Amino acid sequence: MKWGLIGASDIAATRVIPAMRNAGHEVYGVMSSKKDRAKSYAATNLIKHHTSEIENLLSWPIDAVYISTTNDLHAEQAVAAANAGKHILCEKPIALNVSDGQRMINEAKKNGVIFATNHHIRTSGVHQKIREIVENKLLGDIYLARINHVVGLPERLQGWRLDSAVQGAGVVLDITVHNVDTLRAALGSEITSVIAYTSSNGLSQTGVEDTANCTFLFANGVIANTSESFAIPFSTTSFELHGSHGSMVATNVMTQDPTGEIVLTDSEGSRIIEVEDRDNLYVKTLLQFEKAIKGLGSPYATGDDGFAAMQGALAVLLSAKQRRVVQIDEV
Amino acid sequence: MKWGLIGASDIAATRVIPAMRNAGHEVYGVMSSKKDRAKSYAATNLIKHHTSEIENLLSWPIDAVYISTTNDLHAEQAVAAANAGKHILCEKPIALNVSDGQRMINEAKKNGVIFATNHHIRTSGVHQKIREIVENKLLGDIYLARINHVVGLPERLQGWRLDSAVQGAGVVLDITVHNVDTLRAALGSEITSVIAYTSSNGLSQTGVEDTANCTFLFANGVIANTSESFAIPFSTTSFELHGSHGSMVATNVMTQDPTGEIVLTDSEGSRIIEVEDRDNLYVKTLLQFEKAIKGLGSPYATGDDGFAAMQGALAVLLSAKQRRVVQIDEV
Repeated sequence: MKWGLIGASDIAATRVIPAMRNAGHEVYGVMSSKKDRAKSYAATNLIKHHTSEIENLLSWPIDAVYISTTNDLHAEQAVAAANAGKHILCEKPIALNVSDGQRMINEAKKNGVIFATNHHIRTSGVHQKIREIVENKLLGDIYLARINHVVGLPERLQGWRLDSAVQGAGVVLDITVHNVDTLRAALGSEITSVIAYTSSNGLSQTGVEDTANCTFLFANGVIANTSESFAIPFSTTSFELHGSHGSMVATNVMTQDPTGEIVLTDSEGSRIIEVEDRDNLYVKTLLQFEKAIKGLGSPYATGDDGFAAMQGALAVLLSAKQRRVVQIDEV
Repeated sequence: MKWGLIGASDIAATRVIPAMRNAGHEVYGVMSSKKDRAKSYAATNLIKHHTSEIENLLSWPIDAVYISTTNDLHAEQAVAAANAGKHILCEKPIALNVSDGQRMINEAKKNGVIFATNHHIRTSGVHQKIREIVENKLLGDIYLARINHVVGLPERLQGWRLDSAVQGAGVVLDITVHNVDTLRAALGSEITSVIAYTSSNGLSQTGVEDTANCTFLFANGVIANTSESFAIPFSTTSFELHGSHGSMVATNVMTQDPTGEIVLTDSEGSRIIEVEDRDNLYVKTLLQFEKAIKGLGSPYATGDDGFAAMQGALAVLLSAKQRRVVQIDEV
């Protein structure tokens, strides 16, 4: 299948373009609103076609678009792609408000195209195994979930992501959104309310938050805590689930690679849970997306999943701003 | 020095009486409001004197009292002891409301007696080392703290601690109160506000919370998250601090014993921080208390520390009940 890239992004260059080629897909062309950027990016990444106009891109003989522009642009671009009959894989957060997100979902549905979100973490073999552990009740009833997803933001990414509120800057829209998706996928339940604190520790020149601590109440009663930061370079990520019959600690698993280890502790003691599937998360996402286009199942993370993750992140921002508990349907 | 025990408790029998003897102190006598209980407890624990009346106990030739009755009784007993000129080591939470706590502090001061709280965790060599790491700025500026303090409550303790709201039941007054003290001791800063969720997962017959997730904002900007439970038997406790120049993960350290390991990660990689002091936490508490009586320094955790920990826990309960952010001085 043939892809048009909307956005000449770092994530496309470092992860998604290599994954597309690995999956046997063709990267037909790339669009960047900056003409020079489109040209140089195409040259650097060995892409034949480039344009600065989305109309041009949508007129190409492509099956699908991959959208990785700044977050404020996703909605209009996805709607245009849907109306042009192109399937859509969109970066997270899918949009910056629920009405845009809903419009994207509706337009994709109306036009009969697949709309998926690039929540790569849930595709990992490690996270698929965690879901199995939960479904098989190896932990009994789960009471608490904890995610440590604090990182040092690489210098090459310290642009709009830190400073531009209009474009959707901040650690909540960048990382918390992944944690919400990870929790939903693992627990198979929906958020009902959120409480959160955020802080800004000098990374952003405009005071956008670089650190957050969020607590989500899920419909099934689980209380989930997540920590996020751009400003903490020396931590290892982790995902813990604690229940009546066992505790699971997965280390180095909130990443872009199929890394990490799961340790399960129950009445029989502690043991490492083997994870056979160590396939590339982005290749898995793309192959499953291709299957979905062919009517063989659903993408790993649908547009609805992307919507729910965005909604969770927006609720966090509202809670932190207004210093109060926010019900999920308030945003 | 000679002790009178107010309360024929499990913690006294399993930890504090052995520690008193280990420290070279004398356990002069014990009081329990139940006459039979006082007698049998004294016999079991090889204590010469017993009574069911606090007036009797306070008339004994003792230097200090150790109060480990149910939480609702601490205040009156501490005030009586202070007025009898006895030094006071009180279990946590020191009381169930701030006016009682303040009264205890005032009466101790007025009568010139030492008033300490039995927050054993901060006395651990491991936690003293953590404080050193923070003070020496090995983590740079600290942005996030995380404590996992979830346990399965031993069956022998599943009495009033689970069910009796009047006596101060629940995981927040039992465990969160320790986490607040641990955070204050490590960070050297005070809580400004709190947000928390709690849940009740069937352990309590009266619906008192057995699980909590709390987030504390500290005056120095640190956001601290703590998880507590009585209902999760297979986890290992941990205490993490994350900063601009390093991350510290201490495992198996939220306990009654001087156990646990500190791993520090910074630009030079990961390494275990050696902890030389593995002395018994309760013996340390008692020896330091004895020094304080002699005018040689302050107890590890003063009455003011106990007050602050209680206040943090009360703020958690109010936040969880009213589902809102609570400023620390609201309670």
